[in-house]
Amino acid sequence: MTYKIAITRQIPEIGIEYLASKGYDINIWPSTLPPGPEELVSFVEDADGIISMLSDQFSKDILKKLPKLKIISNFAVGHNNINLLTCTRNSVKVTNTPDVLTEATAELTLTLLLSVARKMITATKNVENGEWKSWNPTGFIGTGLKRKTLGIIGPGRIAFEFAKKCHLAFEMPIIYYGRRPKSSFEEHLNAKQMSLKQLLAESDIVSIHCPLTSETKNLIGATELNSMKDGSILINTARGEVINQNDLELSLKKTQLFGIGLDVTAPEPIRHDSPLLKYENIVITPHIGSANKEARNAMSLLCAENIDAYFQGTPLLTEVTIS
Amino acid sequence: MTYKIAITRQIPEIGIEYLASKGYDINIWPSTLPPGPEELVSFVEDADGIISMLSDQFSKDILKKLPKLKIISNFAVGHNNINLLTCTRNSVKVTNTPDVLTEATAELTLTLLLSVARKMITATKNVENGEWKSWNPTGFIGTGLKRKTLGIIGPGRIAFEFAKKCHLAFEMPIIYYGRRPKSSFEEHLNAKQMSLKQLLAESDIVSIHCPLTSETKNLIGATELNSMKDGSILINTARGEVINQNDLELSLKKTQLFGIGLDVTAPEPIRHDSPLLKYENIVITPHIGSANKEARNAMSLLCAENIDAYFQGTPLLTEVTIS
Repeated sequence: MTYKIAITRQIPEIGIEYLASKGYDINIWPSTLPPGPEELVSFVEDADGIISMLSDQFSKDILKKLPKLKIISNFAVGHNNINLLTCTRNSVKVTNTPDVLTEATAELTLTLLLSVARKMITATKNVENGEWKSWNPTGFIGTGLKRKTLGIIGPGRIAFEFAKKCHLAFEMPIIYYGRRPKSSFEEHLNAKQMSLKQLLAESDIVSIHCPLTSETKNLIGATELNSMKDGSILINTARGEVINQNDLELSLKKTQLFGIGLDVTAPEPIRHDSPLLKYENIVITPHIGSANKEARNAMSLLCAENIDAYFQGTPLLTEVTIS
Repeated sequence: MTYKIAITRQIPEIGIEYLASKGYDINIWPSTLPPGPEELVSFVEDADGIISMLSDQFSKDILKKLPKLKIISNFAVGHNNINLLTCTRNSVKVTNTPDVLTEATAELTLTLLLSVARKMITATKNVENGEWKSWNPTGFIGTGLKRKTLGIIGPGRIAFEFAKKCHLAFEMPIIYYGRRPKSSFEEHLNAKQMSLKQLLAESDIVSIHCPLTSETKNLIGATELNSMKDGSILINTARGEVINQNDLELSLKKTQLFGIGLDVTAPEPIRHDSPLLKYENIVITPHIGSANKEARNAMSLLCAENIDAYFQGTPLLTEVTIS
């Protein structure tokens, strides 16, 4: 029997070739823009398996319309776009792509931090716009990173790789806030667990890495933003909704922060009239945490391998279950 | 006796206050643009000491017009703007600001590298221009840094700090090209010295850190650019003239490089019609290597301390002599 696999966007060839070589019937969404909810249903309704993007919402209602579906292989580590409870009840397996994007996302987090700290976007624009008139002893003054305190919210795998880089390269002390003590952080980074309040009061840099759940939604609101240190930096490469973006937008005029780096926003893409777009000390990238050649190829292949494992009846490589 | 000190640009207050507290007669160039050669002479001709910027050219001809001058305290580590031989003959002391800007410049070098590797400038523009339409599995695909080979040209202090960060954070093997073996590189970074040709053939990233001298001027020309690896990255945070910029500009259409990061150009500011400004994979900053609060304050104070040491008759802190 030939299984039908729907892939909701063009992904790197390696995963597509893998499935093709195994004889799957592959259907790829043809547009460079994602399908809307109704388009998604009609595109995937006769598929046995789906490779999905984080922009595809698999709600209870949508899943109800897909009785044939056996597996959703999500091209992401986060899976907040999928109603896991409904999938479990309907015996739809869900997989994600952890680990293979850890290094890429940690590197992007560091890139955002350095870009904020060194005013990269305004500095490069100065050159581009022909405004570089002379060497300037008091222009584009950034902030140094050496021995600054890094506060991690959500001490997972990506956070660990990012914190390790900061600890080794800049001798940063690491503190973290999470549900439970993390031995990797304590042993390898000499990191200390603390309350969110204490972490915000002590950190020169706050970096968000937790998954989006009902507990973490709007975790950082007005109170938390106000309690950050003068001259500190806030970075979010996790999910936009972990920050109460309305509170963030309202705080911008009187913020004490040195700068903010966001790879994720709420909603995504960001609203065109968001005040976040108007401030020079805010750097926003279009959710490119995992966007390097190595990671995206590995994600593509892992998605395909999970699909094939399911239909071969072998163990899934990276299954997501309700925790 | 009250000594007259001319400062050729507004610098951070800390150094000015230091000299003021010691009773010096301080004159600060009032414009945000540097003085031209003739303006420079008339501004400094009755000064006993000068705090100068790297944009101020102290040629033999200019120095001839300054018989009263005792010391030039250069607000930079490089001193290619000063004719050292003429200063020595005229008993004019020269000092610079090494060490205090090492960390800042190493951090900027890493910022440039990461910005090129992760297409930061085009990615942030995408958001700014309202072109971020959806999450894109094949957009802004960067290149990973883990275990890439870093080739250092000019293994000095800034290079060491930068290479150390790359070695620790990304497990990069380090190779270098310099006049003589460097024990700091060999012992702490397990780095290997090699010929320029060999280094260019083996490096995934080439980073330039040598001073500008008659030997290093145009060190990287067409032959060297052509012999770099496919998909490699070139970074220059030293002096623009170390690269033959004409050769670089001519090579752009058919370059095999992944990208280029330049904090320095030839000339500075860059010509408005330079083809370097037209390529998305080239990131140019306006010579901001030392531009962070910590470094610029320390540079300001060190310049002032060197001036005061001279007139107090105590040893200069960081004298530049002909090597």
